[in-house]
Amino acid sequence: MPVGTQGSVKAVSPRELRELNAPIILGNTYHLFVRPGIEVINHLGGLHKFMNWDRPILTDSGGYQIFSLAKLRKITEDGVQFQNHVDGTTAVLSPEIVMEIQATLGSDIAMVLDECPPWPCEYDYAAKSNDLTIAWAKRCKEWAEANAQRPTSNVQRPTPESEISNQQSAIERQLVFGIVQGATFEELRQQCAQALVDLDFDGYAIGGVSVGEPEEEMFRAVESSEPFLPKEKPRYAMGLGTPPQLLELIARGVDMFDCVLPTRLARNGTAFTPTGTLNLKNAEFAKDKRPIEDDCDCACCREFSRGYIRHLIKAEEILGLRLITLHNLHFYLGLMRQAREKIDKGAFDQFRNEFVSNYETRDADLTE
Amino acid sequence: MPVGTQGSVKAVSPRELRELNAPIILGNTYHLFVRPGIEVINHLGGLHKFMNWDRPILTDSGGYQIFSLAKLRKITEDGVQFQNHVDGTTAVLSPEIVMEIQATLGSDIAMVLDECPPWPCEYDYAAKSNDLTIAWAKRCKEWAEANAQRPTSNVQRPTPESEISNQQSAIERQLVFGIVQGATFEELRQQCAQALVDLDFDGYAIGGVSVGEPEEEMFRAVESSEPFLPKEKPRYAMGLGTPPQLLELIARGVDMFDCVLPTRLARNGTAFTPTGTLNLKNAEFAKDKRPIEDDCDCACCREFSRGYIRHLIKAEEILGLRLITLHNLHFYLGLMRQAREKIDKGAFDQFRNEFVSNYETRDADLTE
Repeated sequence: MPVGTQGSVKAVSPRELRELNAPIILGNTYHLFVRPGIEVINHLGGLHKFMNWDRPILTDSGGYQIFSLAKLRKITEDGVQFQNHVDGTTAVLSPEIVMEIQATLGSDIAMVLDECPPWPCEYDYAAKSNDLTIAWAKRCKEWAEANAQRPTSNVQRPTPESEISNQQSAIERQLVFGIVQGATFEELRQQCAQALVDLDFDGYAIGGVSVGEPEEEMFRAVESSEPFLPKEKPRYAMGLGTPPQLLELIARGVDMFDCVLPTRLARNGTAFTPTGTLNLKNAEFAKDKRPIEDDCDCACCREFSRGYIRHLIKAEEILGLRLITLHNLHFYLGLMRQAREKIDKGAFDQFRNEFVSNYETRDADLTE
Repeated sequence: MPVGTQGSVKAVSPRELRELNAPIILGNTYHLFVRPGIEVINHLGGLHKFMNWDRPILTDSGGYQIFSLAKLRKITEDGVQFQNHVDGTTAVLSPEIVMEIQATLGSDIAMVLDECPPWPCEYDYAAKSNDLTIAWAKRCKEWAEANAQRPTSNVQRPTPESEISNQQSAIERQLVFGIVQGATFEELRQQCAQALVDLDFDGYAIGGVSVGEPEEEMFRAVESSEPFLPKEKPRYAMGLGTPPQLLELIARGVDMFDCVLPTRLARNGTAFTPTGTLNLKNAEFAKDKRPIEDDCDCACCREFSRGYIRHLIKAEEILGLRLITLHNLHFYLGLMRQAREKIDKGAFDQFRNEFVSNYETRDADLTE
């Protein structure tokens, strides 16, 4: 899922996202709640109509951003009080309010409110936090059941989307996903996963990853959550990752991802290729006539040279980051498409091994 | 002509420019000379191929930017020595060097090197400057005649452009336009215009306008130049202007314009409409479901509300300025198209009068 934090996948238009065959995007409830505010989006017809996107949208609950961006947080059993990072206004979000907001946004998939513990984190804090996450998930589920008739704003799609399967377009109610927390503690991950499965969500996310932990801790967190999640429902690893990480996580049973890397790194002049990233600011690309990636059929590689794109980035021209963003999203979406095809053909492991061994992850890509 | 200062019309892709039916764009020789440098563009196949634009390009001579942007200028009869505004490197540009550079860029229309006097300007300075501008124009013309066989880089257009008339696409040599200077002095304007016409350029620009002078001085400068320019050749008023100004200048015999207002104001959230500009940052637009302009068929107005665009601008999302830029270019190009149609039908004066009386120019639009 390309990330459309503030009602826009950064630098990209909905038309370009459709041309990229992006099947679904993510919207950030916290950011939209802070600005322009839910009342504005509701007035303008819900998130789909607001941003003119007629395919599915998953909204997060805002929990992660409250813990990473907002100030003066006060967490109680009831919810979270915080000052937002834009104008400092105080607000309270509870599990019920977060569900109400997402229903008003009209996303196709809503996420429960969770507490995302920091890394590193003591066991006692993580255990207490886990109890809160489970209690909040239960309240979110209860809210969703009591409000099961609320349609997504996508129900009023302007045009039928033949690319979307009949099964998907037939779903009119908003789906709700639980979020497995538990920090780095296997028994807490298991406990949380089992409690969520008992609540019977439409899908399950693994949260509390991509919070600064080493890669092996991230894999451990996923590995200690995944076995307790039902195979027939989607599993979603939140906020990850590099291209090899995605393939490793697919190998560990994960189905869905959201990640800002393709769009964020593009704005810094960094492009993804099958062998690793290119920093197009580097002088070596000044006279390079090749596209970012040979044989890539994206809108950037079909038309523009590395030399031109380097010039645009150095000259701080918006077109430069637009073009790299298109390429990077094409690369990520294409990687996921390839993974699905290889799984269908029973050739995923070979594909993953080859890709991971050809790909060099540079430190700079992880510290942006 | 949309302005593509650094090899890109800001925030817009070549594909979008084609969809806007932009028939020609402007490139700034000074900026391209400073960054990425002429050698790089030459290596990458000339300006058309560099930026993947297969329609005509007019390049300015760099004179105006040397006088407005560069530091430590030293003007001699031979040329101008200056330090560029990016890295302070010293360079010398002469009439011959400027022509050589534009031939290497491969633009379809090259401009002569001129000195653009400031406003206000004493008569003595303006007269001396005018002599220099005329002497430099002569040297540019001589260079062009000695190098008449150099094709534009556009000769190798990747695809035939059926939209461009046969007459235009048949021109393979680079055209050269003279530039009338003379500050606010009618006799200097006349003297310069007549000297340039004696040199027989392919077209004639009126320069030394849009340098901070009051609107009436600008009109006077055009009015005192235009009568001496041949009717059968294009006249080009440089760096102008607001929508009513363009219509007033067309009424005074001007055929061509370049202007940064549609792209520059867009980046500040300002959109053009037939009644004046809208500042989309204003709170009044927060819940406005209407497009920027009713019945506008641009890519922005067909799909997005003022409320959404306001949100994008307030949240500093790139898509916001992209959408307003598309609308503003569509507005300017559409205004020129309408003017041509009205001239063909003999209805231009009525059109101009109605447009100008309906349009309110806001001070903020002129001081950006």
